[in-house]
Amino acid sequence: MNQWTGMPALAAEMAALEEVLKDEFSLTNVFLRSAADRLFESGGKRLRPALLIASSMTGEYDREKTLPVAAAIEILHTATLVHDDVIDLADTRRGVATLAALHGNHVAILTGDYLLSKTLVMLAKSNLPDKHKLEAAYAVESMCKGEVAQYIDKGVIPSPRAYIKRIIQKTGILFSAACSMGAFLGGHDEADVRKFGRFGLRLGTAFQIRDDLMDLSSGAKAAGKPVGHDLKNGIITLPVLLAARDDSFKSRLVKYLASSRSSQNTRKLIDAAVSSGGYAEARNILDGHIQKCRLMLEHFGDSAGRPVLAGIIDMIARQPEEG
Amino acid sequence: MNQWTGMPALAAEMAALEEVLKDEFSLTNVFLRSAADRLFESGGKRLRPALLIASSMTGEYDREKTLPVAAAIEILHTATLVHDDVIDLADTRRGVATLAALHGNHVAILTGDYLLSKTLVMLAKSNLPDKHKLEAAYAVESMCKGEVAQYIDKGVIPSPRAYIKRIIQKTGILFSAACSMGAFLGGHDEADVRKFGRFGLRLGTAFQIRDDLMDLSSGAKAAGKPVGHDLKNGIITLPVLLAARDDSFKSRLVKYLASSRSSQNTRKLIDAAVSSGGYAEARNILDGHIQKCRLMLEHFGDSAGRPVLAGIIDMIARQPEEG
Repeated sequence: MNQWTGMPALAAEMAALEEVLKDEFSLTNVFLRSAADRLFESGGKRLRPALLIASSMTGEYDREKTLPVAAAIEILHTATLVHDDVIDLADTRRGVATLAALHGNHVAILTGDYLLSKTLVMLAKSNLPDKHKLEAAYAVESMCKGEVAQYIDKGVIPSPRAYIKRIIQKTGILFSAACSMGAFLGGHDEADVRKFGRFGLRLGTAFQIRDDLMDLSSGAKAAGKPVGHDLKNGIITLPVLLAARDDSFKSRLVKYLASSRSSQNTRKLIDAAVSSGGYAEARNILDGHIQKCRLMLEHFGDSAGRPVLAGIIDMIARQPEEG
Repeated sequence: MNQWTGMPALAAEMAALEEVLKDEFSLTNVFLRSAADRLFESGGKRLRPALLIASSMTGEYDREKTLPVAAAIEILHTATLVHDDVIDLADTRRGVATLAALHGNHVAILTGDYLLSKTLVMLAKSNLPDKHKLEAAYAVESMCKGEVAQYIDKGVIPSPRAYIKRIIQKTGILFSAACSMGAFLGGHDEADVRKFGRFGLRLGTAFQIRDDLMDLSSGAKAAGKPVGHDLKNGIITLPVLLAARDDSFKSRLVKYLASSRSSQNTRKLIDAAVSSGGYAEARNILDGHIQKCRLMLEHFGDSAGRPVLAGIIDMIARQPEEG
C-alpha cells in the first residue's frame, strides 16, 4: 500500500484494514476463502475504505467501530468488480487472471453474490443506524441503475446531464456513502454528515471523469486496459460527448458507432476528440470538481483527517497521463 | 395463483402481495421495471412468501408489517433465479425467455444485483430487529456456499451427509428464515420463533429433495426442464448417491461421469437408479421429512395459520410424478 506512505496516520489504519479483510473470510469454505484471498491480495486501491477512515478521522476516530464498516465497503466494491469482470468478459484485472477466466462465470457470479451478502451481514452487525446501513444498499441499487443506463445508451451520444447522472449512479453514490458513514462514525452531527456526503459525491464524480479520461489516454495501458475500451464498446464518455458538439466530429462519431469499430479507427477518433478540444474541456471539468472538493474540505475545520482527505484528493487530481 | 384456491385466507394475502411487488418497482427506471415486471408476471410459486405469511397467521397477523417482508423474500429468491439462469445458460424459465437470453449476461447479472440490493433496502426499512434482518443476508451467503459446494463436487459422488448439508445451504436456510421471520411478525416468543425456523429448515430440505427427484422423473418435463439435467451436469443428488451404495451401479456411474454423458446414457442410468431402489429410498426419506413437518405443525397449537401451513406441506408432499 505504498500509495499511503505520505499519510502515516492513514497508513497504519489501512494495514489494520487488511487484517480485518483477511479475518472476515477465515471461517468460510476453502474455495470461497481462496477466491476472496486472491481478490483482496491482488490489492485494489482501497480508495473507498480510505475515504471512510479519513472522514472518520476528522472527528473522534474509533478503530473498532470504523474498520469493520470500511471493510464492508471494500467487500461491496469488490463484489461489483467481480460481476463487472463477467460482464466485460475480462480475462485479467490488475494483471491477475479474473475469477471468471479461471473458474467460469458460474463461480464468479456466485462469489460476487457471496461478497454482497457478506457486506450486508457485516453492516447489519455494525450498530450503524438503519439510515446509514441503507446508504450501502442504495449505493448498490444505484450502481446497477447506472450500469443498466450505460447498457441501454450503448451507441448513443448522451447529453452532458445524462452522462453526469450515470456516473453519479455508478460511482458517486458509493463515494458519498463512504464519506457520510465515516463522518457519522467520527461523531459529526447530521448537518456535517450531509456535508461529507456531498463532498464524497463530488469526489466520486471527479474520480469517474478521471477514469473516463484515462480510458482514452495512454494511462489506460499503464493500468492494464486497452486504450479506448469504452469507446469500442459504444460507451460515450465526457471527452467524446463534448467533442461531439462539433458537427463534423459528431458525424464522424455516428459513422464510427455504426461501424465495426476497429482499433485503428478508435485510435483515430480519440486523436480527433483530443484535437477538437473535447479532451481538454473534460479535463477542465475534472479540475473544477477537484477545486470544489478542496474548497469544501477547507470548510470542514482542522482535524487529523483533513490532511489525509487532502492527500486522497491529490491522488485523484493527478493527471491521467501521470496515473 | 390457482394453487391457493383451497386456502382462502392465504389467497387474499397472496393477491395483495402481487400489488406490493408491483408497487415496489413503480419508481425505478423503465428498463429495470420492465425486467422486474416480466420476472414477477411469469409467476413463480411464491412459496417462500406464502410460508412467511402463513407462519405469521399462526399468531396475530398484521398485513402492513408482513407483506413488505414477504415481498422482500420473494425478490431475494427471484434475484438468485436470475443469476442461476446466467449460470445454467438457460434460455427459458417457466416457459418464458430468460433475461440472459433476451438481453445477455450483462443485464441479467445487473438485474439480479439490483433485486438483491432492493431486498436489503426493503428489509432495512422493515423495522424487523437486526437479528431477523441478518437471517436474509445469511440465507444469501449460505445459498452461495451451497452452490459453490455443488460446483466443486461436480462429477463427484457426495456422502449423504455432504448432500444434506448442500441442500440445507441451497434451500433450507431461506425456507427457515421465511418461517421464523413470519413467526416473529406474528408476535411469537423467541422459543417459538426458533421452532418455526426448524420447521422451515426441514420443509426446505424436503422441497429440495422433491426437486432433485423431479429432475430424474418425467415430472421434470412437465416443469419445462430436460430430464436428468443435473446428472448430465455431473451433479449427484440423493436418489443417485443412494443407488451408488451398490457397487455395480457405482462403477457404472463412475464410467458415466467420465464419459460425455449422452442423453441416452443418462436415461439408462436413471432407469438403473430406479431399479436399484435408490429412487424409492430417496422418496422414503422425503416422506419421512414430510411426516416430521406434519408432526411439528401439530405442536404449534391451533390457529388460522396452521391449516394454511398444512396445505403448503401437502403441495410439497405431492409426488414428483404428479407434480
